[in-house]
Amino acid sequence: MRDLTNRQLRLRRRPAGLPSPEDFELTEEPAPVPGAGQVLVRTLLLSIDPAMRGWVAEGPNYVQAVPVGGVMRSFGLAEVVQSRNTRFRKHDIIFGLPGWQEWAVLDEQDILRHVDAAAVPLSAWLGVLGINGLTAYVGMVDIGRPKRGETVLVSSAAGSVGSTAGQIARIRGARVVGLTSTEQKRDLCLRVFGFDDCINYRDVPDLGRAIEEACPEGVDVYFDSVGGQMLDAALDNMNVAGRIPVCGTISEPADLHATGPRVGRRLLVKRLTMQGFLATDHAARMDEIARTLATWIEDGHLRYLEEITSGLEAAPTMLRRVLDGQNEGKSIVRVAEFEPA
Amino acid sequence: MRDLTNRQLRLRRRPAGLPSPEDFELTEEPAPVPGAGQVLVRTLLLSIDPAMRGWVAEGPNYVQAVPVGGVMRSFGLAEVVQSRNTRFRKHDIIFGLPGWQEWAVLDEQDILRHVDAAAVPLSAWLGVLGINGLTAYVGMVDIGRPKRGETVLVSSAAGSVGSTAGQIARIRGARVVGLTSTEQKRDLCLRVFGFDDCINYRDVPDLGRAIEEACPEGVDVYFDSVGGQMLDAALDNMNVAGRIPVCGTISEPADLHATGPRVGRRLLVKRLTMQGFLATDHAARMDEIARTLATWIEDGHLRYLEEITSGLEAAPTMLRRVLDGQNEGKSIVRVAEFEPA
Repeated sequence: MRDLTNRQLRLRRRPAGLPSPEDFELTEEPAPVPGAGQVLVRTLLLSIDPAMRGWVAEGPNYVQAVPVGGVMRSFGLAEVVQSRNTRFRKHDIIFGLPGWQEWAVLDEQDILRHVDAAAVPLSAWLGVLGINGLTAYVGMVDIGRPKRGETVLVSSAAGSVGSTAGQIARIRGARVVGLTSTEQKRDLCLRVFGFDDCINYRDVPDLGRAIEEACPEGVDVYFDSVGGQMLDAALDNMNVAGRIPVCGTISEPADLHATGPRVGRRLLVKRLTMQGFLATDHAARMDEIARTLATWIEDGHLRYLEEITSGLEAAPTMLRRVLDGQNEGKSIVRVAEFEPA
Repeated sequence: MRDLTNRQLRLRRRPAGLPSPEDFELTEEPAPVPGAGQVLVRTLLLSIDPAMRGWVAEGPNYVQAVPVGGVMRSFGLAEVVQSRNTRFRKHDIIFGLPGWQEWAVLDEQDILRHVDAAAVPLSAWLGVLGINGLTAYVGMVDIGRPKRGETVLVSSAAGSVGSTAGQIARIRGARVVGLTSTEQKRDLCLRVFGFDDCINYRDVPDLGRAIEEACPEGVDVYFDSVGGQMLDAALDNMNVAGRIPVCGTISEPADLHATGPRVGRRLLVKRLTMQGFLATDHAARMDEIARTLATWIEDGHLRYLEEITSGLEAAPTMLRRVLDGQNEGKSIVRVAEFEPA
């Protein structure tokens, strides 16, 4: 191999509040060399996810925090350039955790799956057929379990997870109402994703009341990626035996210090189930679920949006856009062009 | 029928805080006469339950609040004295909602089941084979689902529900740790109910730390009838994929104004399920579950305690004892002796 320079984005400091571009710094070093059992990959596309806020924060989480000075953790698609692992060959496209860098040496556990680069646009594997689609499917199908005629309320409805979750609920025959933060996103939910109704929560004086009006028969499933006061307002509108899959708490501080109304009595009075879940726990079902989702895409029942920006150095800005709710659809950073061999 | 006087306990006012004896008043009126489809019953035994706090409080609940001036709602066992319903005959013993009164006219929906007065001591149908046993079974078996070797933490461990729930978890092969409020109750949990360990939470400076020490491998199931800070301490000790059946929130105000740490992020990070449930939703399975519990009683695997006091007028004092956590085992008020026909 010729000598390669590896541009990387490292965590410069622990963010105070939401991570900003200034919390990261661009560094360069020679591309790494794979050891026994490892592969060297070239990063193609990076997935910019709300969960990254938690990954750079202090406090307990489902993964270790990215250390200050460390390369930012990130899901992405990458091409195998050199393999010292018999499960991977040169030119394989893999979905895994390359991080915010141009080249990465990955252990087997950093690689979640092989990806079929021919079947659908490559970027789809990062969103609707990737972790976001898996999150939407597990949360809605396994935990939400909407029945025909039930009402499903979806937070972050125009986002990659929310838009997919809402469309799955519609495929299952539910009436679907979205919660989103701008008129433009509301329009997307209604026109592109086919939601039955959508609330721009920044545009209503009383969110609980707005949900009540949009869901006159109450809410059977609340797909929660937000927590905080939006959850409170949803809880006030739940029907008996309702289900609340929790895939994120983006409106709450990433530490565990948020306070608010206690939920126990609400869960009891309405016999509700509130369940936290992580798509990565269900990685073994990813291929099976991606096939189901791909069928729905082909049928025209499942649509998705992407916002693709080029250049590794755009990643921190794109992350902040996601955390500020300014993105439209799945946020992706293109690090290198994919040139089929 | 001869003329009968019906002594009744009515709600005198909406309680400020926990209901006290002064919140009820003893009244007398002629015993009522059953209309078409109704039955007249003589109350034998009344079940004194923590849920009664919620029944007399303002605010949303799973049943309408008892109106001021109304006879206090209560589960109990009663004997049919006169029947104008073909499903019930004179001398039948029924489990239902006679309320705090000596005689009651019941509609069919006020009667949950017939009771076999010959099989076990009659009082058992109010506790371990009644709503409390059903609550323990549904919460532990259906929602908690303890596996062999897992750790189960049980609140109100010496109470009628908690002691049964803990013993069911032990039958399923789990290690069971109780939470209770006195040394005497702790002793009951260890010696009578066979818990593996038990914490007197009034005797420890840091409950979270005490749970951590008593559950060195973490908590897989927390059976919650308490809510509040005890739940917070349990949440800090949950294992990934833990389950929290919620059957009560006795430490929180009966309105929905309690505040505390938000649970969403804790549920997410540990992939926990928190589920409110009510035994009465599962009344159709009561006979089947009672048979299972009765088998365990005969086997010696399931033990229960009762505290039976005679006289209708004792009910308010007994209720306060229950709410103050001073009772030992199922609290029952005997209103009339059962004399088999």
